[in-house]
Amino acid sequence: MNSDIIKNLEYVKKVEKEIMTYSHAAAILSYDQETICPPKGMEEQGEVKAFLENQAFKLTKDEKFIEASEYLYEHRDELDEWDRTLADQLHRGYMKEKNITPEKMMEFSLVYNKAFVDWSEARAESDFSKFRDSLARVIEINKEIIKIRDIKNGGSVYDQLLDDYERAITSEKLDECFGKCKERLLPLLKKIMNSKKTIRRDFMSIEVTDEQQAKMAKWLLQTIDFDLERGAFTTSEHPFTDGLGKDDIRVTTHYYPNYFAGSIYSIVHEGGHALFESLQPKENYEHFINGGKTMGMHESVSRMYENRIGRSKEFVHLIYPKVCEVFPQVMEGVTENELYEALNIVEPSLIRTEADELTYTFHIIIRYEIEKDLIEGKLTVDEVPKVWNQKYKEYLGIEPETDRDGVLQDVHWTFGFGYFPAYAIGNMYNAMYYNRMKNEIDINDLVAKGDFAAINNWMKENVFKKADRLTPSEWIKDITGKELDADEFLDYLEEKYTELYEL
Amino acid sequence: MNSDIIKNLEYVKKVEKEIMTYSHAAAILSYDQETICPPKGMEEQGEVKAFLENQAFKLTKDEKFIEASEYLYEHRDELDEWDRTLADQLHRGYMKEKNITPEKMMEFSLVYNKAFVDWSEARAESDFSKFRDSLARVIEINKEIIKIRDIKNGGSVYDQLLDDYERAITSEKLDECFGKCKERLLPLLKKIMNSKKTIRRDFMSIEVTDEQQAKMAKWLLQTIDFDLERGAFTTSEHPFTDGLGKDDIRVTTHYYPNYFAGSIYSIVHEGGHALFESLQPKENYEHFINGGKTMGMHESVSRMYENRIGRSKEFVHLIYPKVCEVFPQVMEGVTENELYEALNIVEPSLIRTEADELTYTFHIIIRYEIEKDLIEGKLTVDEVPKVWNQKYKEYLGIEPETDRDGVLQDVHWTFGFGYFPAYAIGNMYNAMYYNRMKNEIDINDLVAKGDFAAINNWMKENVFKKADRLTPSEWIKDITGKELDADEFLDYLEEKYTELYEL
Repeated sequence: MNSDIIKNLEYVKKVEKEIMTYSHAAAILSYDQETICPPKGMEEQGEVKAFLENQAFKLTKDEKFIEASEYLYEHRDELDEWDRTLADQLHRGYMKEKNITPEKMMEFSLVYNKAFVDWSEARAESDFSKFRDSLARVIEINKEIIKIRDIKNGGSVYDQLLDDYERAITSEKLDECFGKCKERLLPLLKKIMNSKKTIRRDFMSIEVTDEQQAKMAKWLLQTIDFDLERGAFTTSEHPFTDGLGKDDIRVTTHYYPNYFAGSIYSIVHEGGHALFESLQPKENYEHFINGGKTMGMHESVSRMYENRIGRSKEFVHLIYPKVCEVFPQVMEGVTENELYEALNIVEPSLIRTEADELTYTFHIIIRYEIEKDLIEGKLTVDEVPKVWNQKYKEYLGIEPETDRDGVLQDVHWTFGFGYFPAYAIGNMYNAMYYNRMKNEIDINDLVAKGDFAAINNWMKENVFKKADRLTPSEWIKDITGKELDADEFLDYLEEKYTELYEL
Repeated sequence: MNSDIIKNLEYVKKVEKEIMTYSHAAAILSYDQETICPPKGMEEQGEVKAFLENQAFKLTKDEKFIEASEYLYEHRDELDEWDRTLADQLHRGYMKEKNITPEKMMEFSLVYNKAFVDWSEARAESDFSKFRDSLARVIEINKEIIKIRDIKNGGSVYDQLLDDYERAITSEKLDECFGKCKERLLPLLKKIMNSKKTIRRDFMSIEVTDEQQAKMAKWLLQTIDFDLERGAFTTSEHPFTDGLGKDDIRVTTHYYPNYFAGSIYSIVHEGGHALFESLQPKENYEHFINGGKTMGMHESVSRMYENRIGRSKEFVHLIYPKVCEVFPQVMEGVTENELYEALNIVEPSLIRTEADELTYTFHIIIRYEIEKDLIEGKLTVDEVPKVWNQKYKEYLGIEPETDRDGVLQDVHWTFGFGYFPAYAIGNMYNAMYYNRMKNEIDINDLVAKGDFAAINNWMKENVFKKADRLTPSEWIKDITGKELDADEFLDYLEEKYTELYEL
């Protein structure tokens, strides 16, 4: 490396360190807002957070920093793989944000913050009209963000929004994958609905306490081998995971008194995210590239732990004694197989986060179709609740009675569009790499024994290690040798439910 | 006001707004560290917090800001009372900190942060040696801070540290007040110890759950009329209150399974702080002077709610039915009078925060005498645990068996010296203004009825309103017409315990 490269690298890393410090602080404030901040304190704290984000943003706008990072990008072939990724990420970020002034950024932050506050209120009161204006503003600024970008990835405005969460994915690819899903899953769903199989479910809605659920949640995090010395868990309205620092990974969950299974799968899902964050190479932090994982990659991991592992016979075998111990009022007289079947009931329902593995995809397809139409101007904000309900009727045959159980259930539209498809892509990715994993380690046996160290280690070496340095298509090819495709996911669902429902 | 004053005021307030923003963020991080941050994430978060505090500190060092605020101080007679207070506070802060460079400030922040981390570990393991080095460093930097200050308030180094918490109080005054306490309370304690009165206490250590205590705590906060829409409560190792924003006042408490009363009085104490923060004039925030309350003022309020009100017959009458409802396993067969007496048992004990009103003062005197000697070099750090134990023996006739129950019980020495006396001064202040309050409103009747709105309103108008704009001696004179003195506090204790113990 020549001395200019060294000098520029040092400078860039010095500024990156400061940016990460502001981001860390802002992330703690976000976490606080979602977990404990009192209602009337939200707005002021939102302003504080916006200020910090703006300070970080101003640093990325510093000319000397931009010059240095663009210099590194031009000389990227002379850098090692970690620094090359940093240079790539910075260049990509710069191209996306070069025309966004600090004032604009501040304006955007305030809009997102207000949207979150409005959504929280609207949801509490189950009244979409209280969120309507904020949603319209979030759409406007998302379009504005794309409009003022110099870089164009080709494709539509919506494709460019998608790119922010899942690099280089296109709505054409999604239409293809979701098309296959509709084609194979709608008939499968119909067969299941018509099947004679009866699954016992009376115990699923027996009331449990928050304390019982907290006890179960903690045990599950320990069981999947997440290190609570490097993390914390608490509750929030919408569960999430936040990697605040290299040794500080926070998981939240949510308890419903009449749905004990919700707390199990919420925590295993978030636990998957947390494992991904906590088992990444420490070099990711040292080189400031730990934000390189895409949402699709992240969801592939969380949903593998939640569903592919979490709803398997072996996992139910593993947790059955603990579930009996923690929820005696639920489990009296319930066999292990009854628990397995009940946790895998397929049934159209209104709430995405509680959906079974099969109907889940339709929750995503509905959101995908709506947000794409919203961005493309084919749908107005005021029509959203109606269209939402119509699509639920069309795909799942049911309709929400309230906005709270309908269009207001998810937080995502308070900050943007293009995130939801990542959940579904995640299912497809993990179906692909799970097929490789089961050829290399005896996954069923390891799950049944609760040996998560071995599973997590396979994931660390094969799935987590390069995630921040590769594009999603490079990454899935690196793991499996193939391009993204829905087939292996659909094969898995057909096989699983054909057996379970004796089709 | 001339245009220069207006210009300087505007500039100063613009910078103050930014400083407050950084401080707000840093306060959230502190709160997070004390309530949920995982052990291994503490250090990194401490660095982030130190960075934010340093950013704020750098702003106070900006020449233009100093010039503007010193200009305002020179023209303070032309300002309204709010802006005059701001100019006073800024001048005082400037004089105290003008010789502290941002680098020094960063160094200090890191020392305090490390001290907190070390103390947490030392306390968990009950091992003073793990805190020893950090304590020595905190002493060093406190001496250094005083040494490099331009402003001298006369008196010793320790007097100048005291001044940071209780403006212009002196160790001479404290020696006088504490001298009176020893003179009148040691004989009173002896009489009580020799009294024939038996107080039933078997039920006081019956095991209760965290959930029961949380339920009681929430009810108590509501009962004393603290607005939970503008505040939150949770648990931490050492309970505290933090006014993070004008509508965001956080209270923490701590639960002990075998001491249900601890959770009651911890929350009423912190609730007193929270009322003081939440019922101050909104102008305090608008003029950035809400940090003007001294620790002694603050403790006077919290300890009035906790003890003078909280341990009165009327308050016990008010809470008795709820205590019976929430803690049935404790209260079966316990009368209201038995509860009142048990909550007022005088008994030498090891833990300050659980001490009765009488022996409490000795907990403070011990800490006061030790920290004064530490600062004055009459005592070494290594001698502290031994001297701590000796003094407990001398004043209270008991000795801790572990550092955890001894010298490591309080967080305060992780950040400095001169705080503890504020607790005792607080008792003396509130005894003085309580005597005025009871002449003006029927406090006993209001407490018994649970009409805290009326009590809080009297406090707001007479005690809270001017606290940020007056020195402690101006303030207590404004409320009572008198100077600080221990007599009214000692009269109260003698009268209360003479009756209770039938002396």
